[in-house]
Amino acid sequence: MSTLSVEDRNRLIAAAAEAKEFAYTPYSHFRVGAAFLSADGKIIKGANIENASYGGTICAERTAIVKAVSEGTKTFIGLAVTSDVPSAISPCGICRQVIREFCALDMPILLVPSDYPQSQTDSTDGGILDTTLGELLPHSFGPEHLELPRRP
Amino acid sequence: MSTLSVEDRNRLIAAAAEAKEFAYTPYSHFRVGAAFLSADGKIIKGANIENASYGGTICAERTAIVKAVSEGTKTFIGLAVTSDVPSAISPCGICRQVIREFCALDMPILLVPSDYPQSQTDSTDGGILDTTLGELLPHSFGPEHLELPRRP
Amino acid sequence: MSTLSVEDRNRLIAAAAEAKEFAYTPYSHFRVGAAFLSADGKIIKGANIENASYGGTICAERTAIVKAVSEGTKTFIGLAVTSDVPSAISPCGICRQVIREFCALDMPILLVPSDYPQSQTDSTDGGILDTTLGELLPHSFGPEHLELPRRP
Amino acid sequence: MSTLSVEDRNRLIAAAAEAKEFAYTPYSHFRVGAAFLSADGKIIKGANIENASYGGTICAERTAIVKAVSEGTKTFIGLAVTSDVPSAISPCGICRQVIREFCALDMPILLVPSDYPQSQTDSTDGGILDTTLGELLPHSFGPEHLELPRRP
Ligand SMILES: [Zn+2]
Ligand SMILES: [Zn+2]
Ligand SMILES: [Zn+2]
Ligand SMILES: [Zn+2]
Repeated sequence: MSTLSVEDRNRLIAAAAEAKEFAYTPYSHFRVGAAFLSADGKIIKGANIENASYGGTICAERTAIVKAVSEGTKTFIGLAVTSDVPSAISPCGICRQVIREFCALDMPILLVPSDYPQSQTDSTDGGILDTTLGELLPHSFGPEHLELPRRP
Repeated sequence: MSTLSVEDRNRLIAAAAEAKEFAYTPYSHFRVGAAFLSADGKIIKGANIENASYGGTICAERTAIVKAVSEGTKTFIGLAVTSDVPSAISPCGICRQVIREFCALDMPILLVPSDYPQSQTDSTDGGILDTTLGELLPHSFGPEHLELPRRP
Repeated sequence: MSTLSVEDRNRLIAAAAEAKEFAYTPYSHFRVGAAFLSADGKIIKGANIENASYGGTICAERTAIVKAVSEGTKTFIGLAVTSDVPSAISPCGICRQVIREFCALDMPILLVPSDYPQSQTDSTDGGILDTTLGELLPHSFGPEHLELPRRP
Repeated sequence: MSTLSVEDRNRLIAAAAEAKEFAYTPYSHFRVGAAFLSADGKIIKGANIENASYGGTICAERTAIVKAVSEGTKTFIGLAVTSDVPSAISPCGICRQVIREFCALDMPILLVPSDYPQSQTDSTDGGILDTTLGELLPHSFGPEHLELPRRP
């Protein structure tokens, strides 16, 4: 796993919590915030934006990554995700797939309980679940598979 | 239809064209740029970001609107969309639905050919298709329908 | 507009109501049923299937059409949609776009109130909103646009 | 991991290959077939159905599962997926998330090369990658998380 400096971890965790404030969740009332750290040190934040069709909903992680890419940032070295739940909440499969398009499998992903750092006293690592894209999306399907020769 | 000032029209058209430069389209090679104008005068740009799964693709219009909402901007007064095609290209139904969540039905939408303003000499309005959300998504399904009393 | 025989209308309306019974809607509690009529006289039914991610939700209309296409049926001559709401409820934009891939713009679409035919006494046409794909998705984006020559 | 009988494995593998024939893939030309086995012994097949919007694309696995659920089948004991590529191709994250809604984490998933069983001579298990939903979507987000108490 790549590693983040303590300072970068803390920046990401704080940014994910800030991002959550802009969630639009009239249907689930389940707010999520996400923040990516780009290779050149920028923080890009996103929140979940729901839709009356449900299927048109875009999660926090995807909001953040399309925001970044559409502004020219395509290389990321870390992601933090938080919600209103005092335990680690994981990206949905849709977001894992979209993250997969741009990020290395060993990119650190921090799943942060809503009560961090208060939760810190209850566990060895403040209740944060430290994982990676590769751990969350094993045997992933990616761009390279579309290039494989076909033999029907 | 609400109307945009000539200056706002021109700002939106230019912003959509700039936005297109950041499209990520390895699969369709069909770049799209979109720009919203917020009620408080901000321009928010988006480009289409494709995905190897195809279904994970997020269009320019949705990229722009989730970017805006996730930064606290929820009121919009205009949208311009452009592509690499020298004729007006329309938002897909998915984007119309997501735009519907936040925008008034009479919000002006400008569909701009890639060769605007050169196309201007060929038609009365420079080849731009001037429309509205209500024209693009009649009898729309929206948040208010989820509130209706049920009688199975 | 193409027209459906009275018998076909009634078959479609009944099928959409039956389809609704299999909706999976733990999040919205908003059940929808849809039924397509194929060119060779088959009825294909679908219900909305929601997902905890919200974005993974697939509506009744899309469930029905992917079911049909995945079984070799690609030509449709009518669609009926109903819900638990005693008024006409319209397909979301996502479904309009997916229907667009396979159906003619003049294909009849019947939006049926949940209390039909009781609603019949209250209005001239039983409260059904008779529309078409072309009316629901004007200036649509479709497969032919991906073929257009590009001039960036 | 739950296990499938040899007979059920073979039925699933054959069904996934048959399902592939109905794929609608004008954009990617990447056909996929999927087949679920229900608890009561039924086989439900699906193929990928693409869309000009790209985002409206529905994969083979999702086509199969919404077909099943919309016909009253909600309990599954196995899944096979195959494509035109002579190696194991894995479900995208979107499909993993939708499967998660209905299937146990230990449900067997068979990823079948297109040249199976010819591939059999090259490896100990015919080149099939035997996995499970839990392996493909670790730390998954599911319906139970939406029920968790919030502490913003
Ligand atoms: Zn997600
Ligand atoms: Zn779109
Ligand atoms: Zn829909
Ligand atoms: Zn998939």
